[in-house]
Parts: sequence; structure tokens; C-alpha cells
Amino acid sequence: MQRYQIAVIGTGPAGLSAAVTAKIRNKTVLLLGRQSLSAKVQKAHAIQNYLGLPNISGEALRQAFQDHLDAMQLSITEAKVSMVYAMGDYFAIQTADENYEAESVILATGVVQGRPFPGEEALLGRGVSYCATCDAPLYRGKTVAVIGASPKEEAEAEFLAEVAQQVYYLPLYAETPQLSATIKVIQDSPTAILGSQKVERLQTKSGEYPVDGVFILRDSIAPNQLVPGLQTEENHVAVNRRMETSIPGCFACGDLVGKPYQYIKSAGEGNVAALSAVAYLDEKKRSARA
Amino acid sequence: MQRYQIAVIGTGPAGLSAAVTAKIRNKTVLLLGRQSLSAKVQKAHAIQNYLGLPNISGEALRQAFQDHLDAMQLSITEAKVSMVYAMGDYFAIQTADENYEAESVILATGVVQGRPFPGEEALLGRGVSYCATCDAPLYRGKTVAVIGASPKEEAEAEFLAEVAQQVYYLPLYAETPQLSATIKVIQDSPTAILGSQKVERLQTKSGEYPVDGVFILRDSIAPNQLVPGLQTEENHVAVNRRMETSIPGCFACGDLVGKPYQYIKSAGEGNVAALSAVAYLDEKKRSARA
Ligand SMILES: Cc1cc2nc3c(=O)[nH]c(=O)nc-3n(C[C@H](O)[C@H](O)[C@H](O)COP(=O)(O)OP(=O)(O)OC[C@H]3O[C@@H](n4cnc5c(N)ncnc54)[C@H](O)[C@@H]3O)c2cc1C
Ligand SMILES: Cc1cc2nc3c(=O)[nH]c(=O)nc-3n(C[C@H](O)[C@H](O)[C@H](O)COP(=O)(O)OP(=O)(O)OC[C@H]3O[C@@H](n4cnc5c(N)ncnc54)[C@H](O)[C@@H]3O)c2cc1C
Repeated sequence: MQRYQIAVIGTGPAGLSAAVTAKIRNKTVLLLGRQSLSAKVQKAHAIQNYLGLPNISGEALRQAFQDHLDAMQLSITEAKVSMVYAMGDYFAIQTADENYEAESVILATGVVQGRPFPGEEALLGRGVSYCATCDAPLYRGKTVAVIGASPKEEAEAEFLAEVAQQVYYLPLYAETPQLSATIKVIQDSPTAILGSQKVERLQTKSGEYPVDGVFILRDSIAPNQLVPGLQTEENHVAVNRRMETSIPGCFACGDLVGKPYQYIKSAGEGNVAALSAVAYLDEKKRSARA
Repeated sequence: MQRYQIAVIGTGPAGLSAAVTAKIRNKTVLLLGRQSLSAKVQKAHAIQNYLGLPNISGEALRQAFQDHLDAMQLSITEAKVSMVYAMGDYFAIQTADENYEAESVILATGVVQGRPFPGEEALLGRGVSYCATCDAPLYRGKTVAVIGASPKEEAEAEFLAEVAQQVYYLPLYAETPQLSATIKVIQDSPTAILGSQKVERLQTKSGEYPVDGVFILRDSIAPNQLVPGLQTEENHVAVNRRMETSIPGCFACGDLVGKPYQYIKSAGEGNVAALSAVAYLDEKKRSARA
């Protein structure tokens, strides 16, 4: 397997700026995220405070970022990362379809919307999962609930239905889910995940469902759930001014590391994170030689 | 005298980004520096890593920044700040021509090139000066040396020659100074400023000159000399991630606060510094009301 020097996770201004700087420094870069870049860029109406691009629409800013990637021959590997493991000498990066390896990682996944459900963190890996394609095989012939934050998660539920015996689907959005008849849609708000050693029931506002697993499919994953062992501070990844996290070789930038939530702040931090990753790689090489 | 809410000192990417964000937040902004913006922007050949403006020349980036100022109706007050005094409730800002007042200050003056001369810091204010127009009256009928970092400092020497009895001029550049005959050009490198209680002599590589004052005219002023009492760390202004310095109401950003020296890092920090200044002003107002 190719081992990249720097993996960048997230394609908002923080991740893109990190990838651009890493590429300029001649490192092999794996940029994981969305081809459409960041919804938070695209959806903005008029942006006044990105110095050098006065009064620009979100779509025009997205295009300017894309032009920059094209100019640098940087491409995005379309993927949602479900887990990053610090293996000591390198990082193993898990996505639904594939695994990757990198010597250093830059996290730029933005802020997590919403709080975890009660029981979610305690039962993570014991029935709670964030990735259908990763964990579906564990639920062959069993009963699972899927909590979907957006209609695009319906495909994940369909995939699970091919394996599990029963799938409940709880949409967190207004649109009516378009799902196969075998999937039971529950129009009720999930309130807690219950179980002592492992997931036993999903509690909703007006009922309880016995289940073996709960798939929570949000847009983002809480940072300490994405990278086990990562130190956080009030829901943000803890970093110093060099954008170093508590794990050597792992850097973070952008909204993910704290307020203010701003484009140019994120881009500036991405640049710093990339240069710190470069310094980390250079130092590793030096000490290997010594 | 008008008291501005936020004074920004420096017109590189850090200061400009701070001014833009402060203006968006409806604060009264005084932007002090050069109309030509930053020489470090203008002189760059091709910049690859300012996200959103791929492969741009320094001159084109300067123009993009200028367009942003114009779009926001932000204007620059052409001035070199010689001193900033923290007065408790506000800041007094001294320039050659005028004094200004502001409730908060954002320092964005870039990095100081070169080290201080031996004796410079010890004798500052006791014969060592950074501002000819400020301190010339003190040297009526006396002998002074002017150390000029660039040809534009020659005008300062001429100004001093109208007042002082003898002016020595030591250029730190290759071009031949174009000066009045009364000014004695010394083509030699200054090495130290000597004196016990006050300046007595200027030492050069090959000689010594008895003088009453030494004017050191560089492009920038060391941060703790610009703002007395400001805490520094290895020649940079010490800040936290909110860009707060050791003086309440005084913020700093860009190269001035540390490496890496980069445009987008500076612009990102300017944005953060401005939002922290806004929070400081809001908090001050709240506690005044309480
Ligand atoms: C409507 C709107 C208007 C705004 N207007 C302004 C403004 O005028 N000025 C301003 O400065 N700021 C504005 N903001 C804030 C700005 O959008 C954010 O501060 C900025 O986008 C943060 O950049 P980021 O790179 O840290 O994160 P994001 O832009 O959120 O990007 C994170 C990226 O990571 C991806 N990602 C997340 N998890 C994973 C995973 N597990 N695997 C792979 N990829 C993942 C996401 O899909 C996303 O593409 C606005 C925000 C919104 C929502
Ligand atoms: C030739 C060259 C090429 C570069 N190329 C790149 C590159 O490709 N990519 C990159 O990211 N970075 C590059 N850099 C670095 C980049 O220029 C700096 O990191 C950036 O300009 C720092 O911005 P700043 O706003 O902190 O300070 P500066 O840009 O240095 O601006 C400081 C401003 O403050 C003014 N000032 C100073 N003292 C005072 C005072 N007492 N009163 C009033 N005004 C004052 C100065 O005149 C100046 O206008 C390059 C630098 C150089 C010299």
C-alpha cells in the first residue's frame, strides 16, 4: 500500500490550504473529502472578509478554491473518513471503501453539528457505529436502527437492509424517506441509546425499540471519535499555535480547533498545520539517519 | 480628539485583514501604515499558497488587497508609528506628524529586520532615537549620527541637519547617498553605541565618533520598543490563540507574533485579532453599564 507523507482530511478552506502548502513543499499528499468542497463555502451568500477576494459569493469562492487545486494539480479522493488510528510510526485511515496509510495527518473536518445522544459515546464500538459499509457485516441477520441526518444516508440504510434482518430508519429531516418496503421508517425523535455492555434498545420520544446496533449517520464525526485518544477542549481538538494536537504527527486546523469560525482563519491555520507537518516529517527523517 | 475604537498598525496582510473584519463589525477603524501596503507583498514574484488566488504576482496580490480596501471604503493614514502608550482606558499612538487615540490596538508591523546594535536598547531614550521628526528639537546645536537602512531615510537626515550642528550619515545600503554638503557621509559599518548614562560615542568598524544622539532609522521598530511593557518571546510579541498580548486591549498578528512567515497565516491571524478586539470592546461596554 502506498504510504503518503501527509493525509489531509476535509475539503473546506482549512484542508485545502493545508493541501496546497504541503504540495508546494513537495510532499506526497492524500486529500480526502468531498469533490464539491465544503457546503459551508458553497452555501454562503456574500462573503466580505476573505482578504483579497472582496464581496464574493460562496459559489465564486468555491470556484476560486477549485481553480487553485487545479493549478496545483491537486485532486480530491471522494471519501468520508470513519476512523484514524495512530499506529506509532504512521496513521491508518479508514473510509467506507478503502483504507489508507500516511506518515502524518492533518484534520480539517470542521465543526460537528449537534451533540451526541445519551449513551452514544459509552456504547461506541459496542453496537454504536458511524459507518454502515464498515460495520454492516457484524449485523448479519440482526436488528439495527439507522439515524440519518440527511436523505443521502438512505443509501446506507438500503445497504444495511441487504445484510441485517430488520432495519429501522429514523430520519432527522423533514423530507419523506424513499426506502424499500423492508425498511421500517420511524417518524419519531431518537432520545437515547440504552444497554449495559452493548446496545440493547433505542429510545425515542414515544417508545423503545429492541436493537442490536445503532448507526448514527451525521455529516461529521466528533473529533475524539474520529481519532481515538485525541485530546479535546470543549468539543474542539486541542492544539497549540503550531497546530499540533496531543498525538505526534497529527495536526488540526479550522473550525475544528475552535472559534472564531471564519474562512480566512481556517485557511491560515491550514497553512501553519502543513508547515508543522513538513517539519515533523523532516525531523523524523533526520532522527532516522542519526 | 477623535477616539477610534480600533487602531490597526501595519498595512501588510495581517493589518489589512484585521481592518476589514473590524470594519465589517461596524467599529471605527484607524488604519496606520503605508499607502503602498507592504513591501513584502509587492516585491514577491509568484505566490502559490494564498488559497483562492493561485499563482499570483506580488503586485497583483497588492492590487487585490487594495481593491478590498476600496470595496470596504477603508483608507490608510500614511504614517510610521513611533510609540504606543497603554494609558489604561485607551492607547495613545504617536507618529511623526500627529498623535492618535484608540480604545484598542492591533499591532501588525511585521518582523524587525536585523538585530539591535550593542548599546541600542540600553541607551534608548537617552540619546538613541527611532524618529527624527519626533526628537530633532532635543538636538539643537548638537552632534548626531543617523544610521539609515534605506535611501528614504536621507530626508530625515536633511531634516535633522536644519536643527543639529553636525549630522553624520551612515548608510546601510549600497547606493550613494544624495545629501547636502553639510551632512558628513561615513561609509563605514556601525558596530556599537557607547555611553554610560547617555549616548557619548558611535563606534564603527574603523573608528569612533563623539555624538550626542544616534538616530537608527530602520523599516520597523522592535515590538517592545514600539509598545513599552509588551511581553515578547524570542523577538516576537507573545500572544495566545486569540491574539491577545500581555496588555489588555492590545492585540497582535502576522509575522510579528511568530513563524511561519506567511501571507495567509498573517491574514488569518488579523481576522482573529479583530474579532478579539471587538469582543474586548463589547465586554468593556457591558461592564461600564453594570
Ligand atoms: C451559511 C454560512 C455563511 C458563512 N459566512 C461566513 C463569512 O461570511 N465569513 C467567514 O469568515 N465565515 C463564514 N462562515 C463560516 C465558515 O463557513 C467556516 O468557518 C469555514 O468553512 C470553516 O472551514 P473548515 O475548513 O474548518 O471547515 P468546513 O468548511 O466545515 O469544511 C470541513 C470539510 O470536511 C469534510 N468532512 C467532515 N468530516 C469528514 C470526514 N469524516 N471525512 C472526510 N471529510 C469530512 C466536510 O464535508 C467539509 O467539506 C459561514 C458559514 C455558513 C454555514
Ligand atoms: C520576497 C518575499 C517573498 C515572499 N513570498 C511568500 C510566499 O510566496 N508565500 C507566503 O506565504 N509568504 C511569503 N513571504 C512572506 C510574507 O511576505 C510575510 O509573511 C507577510 O508579508 C507578513 O505579513 P504581515 O502583515 O505580518 O507583515 P508585513 O507584510 O511585513 O507588513 C507589515 C507592515 O507594517 C508596516 N509597519 C512596520 N512598522 C510600522 C510602524 N511603526 N508604523 C506603521 N507601519 C509600520 C510596514 O511598513 C508594512 O507595511 C515573502 C516575503 C518576501 C520578503
